[in-house]
Amino acid sequence: MSRRLAAEFLGTFWLVLGGCGSAVLAAQFGGEGNPLGIGLLGVSLAFGLTVVTMAYALGHISGGHFNPAVSIGLWAGGRFAAADLLPYIVVQVAGAIAAATALYCIAHGQAGFSIDPAAAGAFATNGYGSHSPAGYSLQAAAITELLMTGFFILVILGVTSRGAPAGFAPLAIGLCLALIHLISIPVTNTSVNPARSTGVALLAGGPALQQLWLFWLAPALAAAVAGGVWRWLGGSSQR
Amino acid sequence: MSRRLAAEFLGTFWLVLGGCGSAVLAAQFGGEGNPLGIGLLGVSLAFGLTVVTMAYALGHISGGHFNPAVSIGLWAGGRFAAADLLPYIVVQVAGAIAAATALYCIAHGQAGFSIDPAAAGAFATNGYGSHSPAGYSLQAAAITELLMTGFFILVILGVTSRGAPAGFAPLAIGLCLALIHLISIPVTNTSVNPARSTGVALLAGGPALQQLWLFWLAPALAAAVAGGVWRWLGGSSQR
Amino acid sequence: MSRRLAAEFLGTFWLVLGGCGSAVLAAQFGGEGNPLGIGLLGVSLAFGLTVVTMAYALGHISGGHFNPAVSIGLWAGGRFAAADLLPYIVVQVAGAIAAATALYCIAHGQAGFSIDPAAAGAFATNGYGSHSPAGYSLQAAAITELLMTGFFILVILGVTSRGAPAGFAPLAIGLCLALIHLISIPVTNTSVNPARSTGVALLAGGPALQQLWLFWLAPALAAAVAGGVWRWLGGSSQR
Amino acid sequence: MSRRLAAEFLGTFWLVLGGCGSAVLAAQFGGEGNPLGIGLLGVSLAFGLTVVTMAYALGHISGGHFNPAVSIGLWAGGRFAAADLLPYIVVQVAGAIAAATALYCIAHGQAGFSIDPAAAGAFATNGYGSHSPAGYSLQAAAITELLMTGFFILVILGVTSRGAPAGFAPLAIGLCLALIHLISIPVTNTSVNPARSTGVALLAGGPALQQLWLFWLAPALAAAVAGGVWRWLGGSSQR
Repeated sequence: MSRRLAAEFLGTFWLVLGGCGSAVLAAQFGGEGNPLGIGLLGVSLAFGLTVVTMAYALGHISGGHFNPAVSIGLWAGGRFAAADLLPYIVVQVAGAIAAATALYCIAHGQAGFSIDPAAAGAFATNGYGSHSPAGYSLQAAAITELLMTGFFILVILGVTSRGAPAGFAPLAIGLCLALIHLISIPVTNTSVNPARSTGVALLAGGPALQQLWLFWLAPALAAAVAGGVWRWLGGSSQR
Repeated sequence: MSRRLAAEFLGTFWLVLGGCGSAVLAAQFGGEGNPLGIGLLGVSLAFGLTVVTMAYALGHISGGHFNPAVSIGLWAGGRFAAADLLPYIVVQVAGAIAAATALYCIAHGQAGFSIDPAAAGAFATNGYGSHSPAGYSLQAAAITELLMTGFFILVILGVTSRGAPAGFAPLAIGLCLALIHLISIPVTNTSVNPARSTGVALLAGGPALQQLWLFWLAPALAAAVAGGVWRWLGGSSQR
Repeated sequence: MSRRLAAEFLGTFWLVLGGCGSAVLAAQFGGEGNPLGIGLLGVSLAFGLTVVTMAYALGHISGGHFNPAVSIGLWAGGRFAAADLLPYIVVQVAGAIAAATALYCIAHGQAGFSIDPAAAGAFATNGYGSHSPAGYSLQAAAITELLMTGFFILVILGVTSRGAPAGFAPLAIGLCLALIHLISIPVTNTSVNPARSTGVALLAGGPALQQLWLFWLAPALAAAVAGGVWRWLGGSSQR
Repeated sequence: MSRRLAAEFLGTFWLVLGGCGSAVLAAQFGGEGNPLGIGLLGVSLAFGLTVVTMAYALGHISGGHFNPAVSIGLWAGGRFAAADLLPYIVVQVAGAIAAATALYCIAHGQAGFSIDPAAAGAFATNGYGSHSPAGYSLQAAAITELLMTGFFILVILGVTSRGAPAGFAPLAIGLCLALIHLISIPVTNTSVNPARSTGVALLAGGPALQQLWLFWLAPALAAAVAGGVWRWLGGSSQR
């Protein structure tokens, strides 16, 4: 079990360091309006590639969840033991916090760096209302996180089922996370992953912490529902 | 059969929510001229990745068409039963309309959001002439949709034939849709999919509805011809 | 044989329509300086994806060359019959000309469209000196086309050899073409494919035609040398 | 052995020509602020694709390291013979120097080209402090190179182990290198590869040479540690 938990810790660490790291360090390289920066497209690919790489590398050890919503969705879909839920979620959150701390140490090495917790999306945090990157309401944010997480879980259950081609699951799952970011960064800065939201919110503080409930509630709820939809669809079991 | 139709509904929902959603929500993030937005390149990848993800997830259930032109092309190529055409097309259109509605609910959550039906490409609709994103004529739009859909069907028939490497079809088909968008968004905002065009046109109304005929006629015609070309090429049957 | 030639015609048509089409239609969407356009990155991906898609779709019919330099390189590497060289090259060039004509018909549908043959890179043509997109000399252009084509052939021979993992060759070859464009569009607008250069040069006329010799000579020479290097490396034969 | 060394030479040549070449030639095409250039996102993809292509092409000959840190990490992970370390590293550095020289010859073909060794990131060199692209401190640069190289090695060991799906290793490893660049170009211009750093530093001279020690020390140290972590994780052996 400790080997599986170590894999989940490392994978979630990489997801937050790579995804949030690319947003904090490289999205606006050269200053606002400079096209050299990787922008939302680059950040979306970075989030996706953290999962592609770690799911291929460590997926055969822990299943490669790296996300409490994924663990919940797989449990709801009948693929993951209830007894493993809590330890998985604990190490996922621990990995995310460790990665946010490492990212803070790196970002701090640039003169003039500071986090303004009142700025929407500060330190790659998630938010709604005045803390949504493009000012989307709580209702829009909730619908977005529910739909994005729900389809994410559906894709994960589908691509890991016996009917799907072998070997492509980590690629499809990672690219799905990239796609989700391409759609929804402007709305909530994209969570679909309570651990990722928690890690950076703890470092940033302020509104990101106050709004953190939504990024636990919506992904967890959507994951549970999506697991049920998959069963109703008569989805085949894991390969 | 109901399981296959549910898969087509979900897949087409995801295609429209992801593809059109990235265009509406994220293409011009930060305002016109801001390089943070994902632009036409990001929208192209988003459309492609909706198909990559859902074809890997649900392709083994329904075949993963998510597009009336694909169903028609596979029928013309001798791969799909005529009796299944109508039910498939009905649920594809229903999924697209549901997704456009969901997208409207999200987009509506930003203060000041409204759809100007007279603007070219409004709410990710397809169009020609004064409603083409870059002002291309009806003739150019027709040639473009015919060529893009025709080659799309040819690629689909080729990559799913017995001669092609196993497992790569969803990746190649999704990347083909991304490529098609990289080429043709400026011409018609890229349809090659009558369901996708219908879903957002119903929400936007106005010229998008009046021009909708082209985005049924051209893809359907091209798909039927491409299926015939494949047979003439002596393409091998499905693996 | 006619089936193989039809596949080469269609594949090269798609390469030129997709690659050059994305450059002509979408690279600078919205006008100079507008970040909505797909830029050199989008054009590079488009060229690559034409090969990914068609090599998966038709590769099992014709080998999926779509490029005279590839046919020459495979012949030099001992993988392709000398007798097939001429017919392959003829249909590749025919496909490229047909695609350039189709692209012209589409581009012509935008008010005010015209080709200025004196502009570097006009209608996606290749060039050097004052016709290089960023003003690179003939010598730099020659070194670039030699190195890019040589490594392209080496990659093709390597990924299709018995030692390489099965099924990934079309992906690796297409992504190699994308990479080559990421490096060298500023130098020569990237050829590595005499057919692609010929198709658009015939439509654009002027300097593109006068400089066309380089984009036959350098790719052909480099391909022949790379085939020899592969043999010297003791590369394994085709899987 | 000479065949393996030739493969490492060619692969590292391609990595430096493609990765550093895209940065020098294409990142800022059209001048500062022009969105046509491929930017940091395009450079990141270029680095990644050099590895994807060459690992598929030559990986079955030499293992496809193309990087002294990878050779060290595989040795530390128990996958590579100590006796092969020195010859591998020597040809990797030689390949990188040859590629930097070839790149110089091409870049030199543009009127007005010159390298200003005092400019951060000149000729794609790596650096910290005033020679970091975005002004990051030595400490931030060291943490970044340690973490990036460490996770790179972990991914490599994971995706090539018996538990991981066959055939995907070159794709996952190359995409990991792309991801690493998406995160860390602003900090150190991204090394994680002492050979790559050495090749361009020798051509640029000045501060890049003085700071070269970090880009040998950090990647080598992190690789050795990551190899040990993999063993502690009980990672399965090579497939």
